[in-house]
Amino acid sequence: MNYKVIRYVTGWVVFLEGLFLLLPAFVTLIYREHGLLAFLLTSIVCLLLGALMIFRKPKDFTFYAKEAFLIVVLSWIGMSLIGAIPFWVSGTIPSVVDALFETVSGFTTTGASILNDVESLPHGMLFWRSFTHWIGGMGVLVFMLALLPMAGGQTMWLMKAESPGPSVSKLMPNLRKTALFLYGAYSLLTLTQFILLATVGQMPIFDAICSAVGTAGTGGFGVRNTSFAGYTPAAQIITTVFMFLFGVNFTVYFLLWKRRFKAAFGIEELRWYVLIYLGGVIAILLNLLFTTGQFFENIRDVFFQAASMMTTTGFSTVDFDKWPQFSRTVMVVLMFVGACAGSTGGGIKVSRFILWIKSTGIELIRMVHPRSVRVLKMDGKAIDRDTQGGLNVYLICYIGIYVLSLLLISFDGFDLTTNFTSVVATLNNIGPGLNMVGPAGNFAHFSVLSKIVLIFDMLAGRLEIFPILLVFFPSTWKK
Amino acid sequence: MNYKVIRYVTGWVVFLEGLFLLLPAFVTLIYREHGLLAFLLTSIVCLLLGALMIFRKPKDFTFYAKEAFLIVVLSWIGMSLIGAIPFWVSGTIPSVVDALFETVSGFTTTGASILNDVESLPHGMLFWRSFTHWIGGMGVLVFMLALLPMAGGQTMWLMKAESPGPSVSKLMPNLRKTALFLYGAYSLLTLTQFILLATVGQMPIFDAICSAVGTAGTGGFGVRNTSFAGYTPAAQIITTVFMFLFGVNFTVYFLLWKRRFKAAFGIEELRWYVLIYLGGVIAILLNLLFTTGQFFENIRDVFFQAASMMTTTGFSTVDFDKWPQFSRTVMVVLMFVGACAGSTGGGIKVSRFILWIKSTGIELIRMVHPRSVRVLKMDGKAIDRDTQGGLNVYLICYIGIYVLSLLLISFDGFDLTTNFTSVVATLNNIGPGLNMVGPAGNFAHFSVLSKIVLIFDMLAGRLEIFPILLVFFPSTWKK
Repeated sequence: MNYKVIRYVTGWVVFLEGLFLLLPAFVTLIYREHGLLAFLLTSIVCLLLGALMIFRKPKDFTFYAKEAFLIVVLSWIGMSLIGAIPFWVSGTIPSVVDALFETVSGFTTTGASILNDVESLPHGMLFWRSFTHWIGGMGVLVFMLALLPMAGGQTMWLMKAESPGPSVSKLMPNLRKTALFLYGAYSLLTLTQFILLATVGQMPIFDAICSAVGTAGTGGFGVRNTSFAGYTPAAQIITTVFMFLFGVNFTVYFLLWKRRFKAAFGIEELRWYVLIYLGGVIAILLNLLFTTGQFFENIRDVFFQAASMMTTTGFSTVDFDKWPQFSRTVMVVLMFVGACAGSTGGGIKVSRFILWIKSTGIELIRMVHPRSVRVLKMDGKAIDRDTQGGLNVYLICYIGIYVLSLLLISFDGFDLTTNFTSVVATLNNIGPGLNMVGPAGNFAHFSVLSKIVLIFDMLAGRLEIFPILLVFFPSTWKK
Repeated sequence: MNYKVIRYVTGWVVFLEGLFLLLPAFVTLIYREHGLLAFLLTSIVCLLLGALMIFRKPKDFTFYAKEAFLIVVLSWIGMSLIGAIPFWVSGTIPSVVDALFETVSGFTTTGASILNDVESLPHGMLFWRSFTHWIGGMGVLVFMLALLPMAGGQTMWLMKAESPGPSVSKLMPNLRKTALFLYGAYSLLTLTQFILLATVGQMPIFDAICSAVGTAGTGGFGVRNTSFAGYTPAAQIITTVFMFLFGVNFTVYFLLWKRRFKAAFGIEELRWYVLIYLGGVIAILLNLLFTTGQFFENIRDVFFQAASMMTTTGFSTVDFDKWPQFSRTVMVVLMFVGACAGSTGGGIKVSRFILWIKSTGIELIRMVHPRSVRVLKMDGKAIDRDTQGGLNVYLICYIGIYVLSLLLISFDGFDLTTNFTSVVATLNNIGPGLNMVGPAGNFAHFSVLSKIVLIFDMLAGRLEIFPILLVFFPSTWKK
């Protein structure tokens, strides 16, 4: 275990967070609000601590999977702990666990909140809350890779450990350029959405900024108690489109940028993503038509909610918890599916489902024709044995964490639907669930134990389980 | 595809069912009840049809996996359709779908009922209802293998296709002897339980017979509206023990019979089965202690209910749906785990969980130490690639069928807990779930569509998914 490189890289993460914290400090200055000191002090401590950690560059830069996993886990836990300080010391969120819950929910782009009344928060706090989504969406380590020229080809491990999906595609031979492209596309999309929301969507500038960064990270924290219900139809439609776009595998944007249009639209995951989304929308629309007799009145809301749940953003324009049971079940299914790999969205990811279904087909054929030799492929490329092994293990670990979480939070005595969807909503980084944690509810009423469990789930969900699990393995820590 | 052998073997199944139907006919004679004609006529038709089908023995007896899968599926569907006739023609269950639901629930040893008032049924019908559990528990094809000297070593496929668990252990080199041992042990245990229930348990003879055959198949149909709540404590304790015993891998009994005690008690699955059961019991007891302040009052009920759910029997002495949420969640977890492979119990099976957890550990270690070479083992023996592949596919198909069923039954508009546990209760062949299908409820209120979905789930659960799925594969039907 190369501890020096771990110290060095996590030091950069702390330093970068110090810089990020200057932004909300600036917002408090503009609005002449309380909270400036909280942001400034936390920022200064971060900058000093970070500088101290990166002062001595390690000579030996070799690292492997386990170092990368450890860096990612430590960075994310550290980032969350630091990010919670302003909420707590400013008194905005008086409970430490609640402040941590809110911050982890932000960085992991979950968007689950313990706040009953977000409108009472100062603008600086609201901005920081939404901005954590933007940092967490594409990942702070990917950001660092874009900024720093890091020696050694093994930095790829960092990106693998932080980026979502069963396998990571290196878009360009140079990792730094890949990271730069990702953050470039990410920023450009965010900026476009902001401009559209502020102009066409007629949103106040502050709301437009926070909504754009919240959509970009597929986060879900809003700055209004009614989430998106109070904004103009244009703003809702723009956000629907951008939620969907941020849930797309960024490889598609890379191919578009390279003008390889046929390759871009031919990506299997993209096609299934569109199909599942449209399938869900149509199923819900028909169900609502048959139960309420209304169709056109629901179109905007259904497109919005389905995109919000499938991309795991979590904004809402309507209380879908009041929809008929079939539609609610479709929403739960979309929650599990999630967005594309290599997007900012969470969930299990469309590509995992494609690979699971394909490998199942291959095994079933083998049962009937034992001599058949078929290879698991995606976009025409064979899937290597490690990725395949990882797929199955992911599923089993996912279920294991799911069941354990469900058991632990059931001590609070809430109903099964609340518990069941709370765990999906956090483990898949969505935000709202059903019943007590539905779009009209929040996570405030859970006990401290349950909140800690759900914090763990949010982190496990964002980092896709393995890095978090490996920390508990003794063999990870061996020299 | 060797259609002649399929015709021949399914013919034997029909013939045997004709013989089995004489038993309830005999019961109606004893009680001088209505229904005699229904049983006798169905029996005669079966005997004639069966005789016709087995009249010409096929010359070519070779068959492989796909023939075996098809035989099992056709036999089970045929058995269920025939078994439903007496309920329907006698007017006991006027709806065809309901009669089929009840029969499939019987043969698959689910024990989910659409009847509100079982005590109003004639004894013959009640006996047939319970006796289907006994036939389905160990399997009709295993019964046939015990009776008939079948040529060809490939008859093993039949046992593989019908017996539960990820892999089937051939206890003796001779398959017929294996089948004979299984039915011998099965009958002996059933008889012992019957005698104990009738004597120590002070049960009426009829109740003791029906309860014994219902426990043996881990079925769950009772002959009283209150299930086991009205019987003596002794009868409840005896049944607890026997439910647990019928959930044990029968390999254990084989080893005990061979006086290989150390090997018998050293079987990994047995140890985990005991541990999970006791873990569940203790968790629920403590939860009840902390919420209700009672401990000793609950011991008998908790041991009974945990055994009933984990072995997927489904009898009840108490309405566990009224227990606190944590205990209810533990019950749901036990429902998913299920009994041992090679037992008469349903569910996902303890051995599958052991193998999943082990293979996950191996893959996780591979992530940190890519050069590590560890082999998946069970009881010291390496697990072959086909069994491993089957494990993962089972999980994915299970989830797929689960989600699809959940979506389809959600059209009825019942709550998520009812729907969620209805699918577990049928797909795992348990019987009761929670809320509307809890121990105090039943499945009568579901629509015809939902009942058909749940009938499919019961069959898919009992036959462990693959045979049922392969019927839908075009390549299965190719010559």
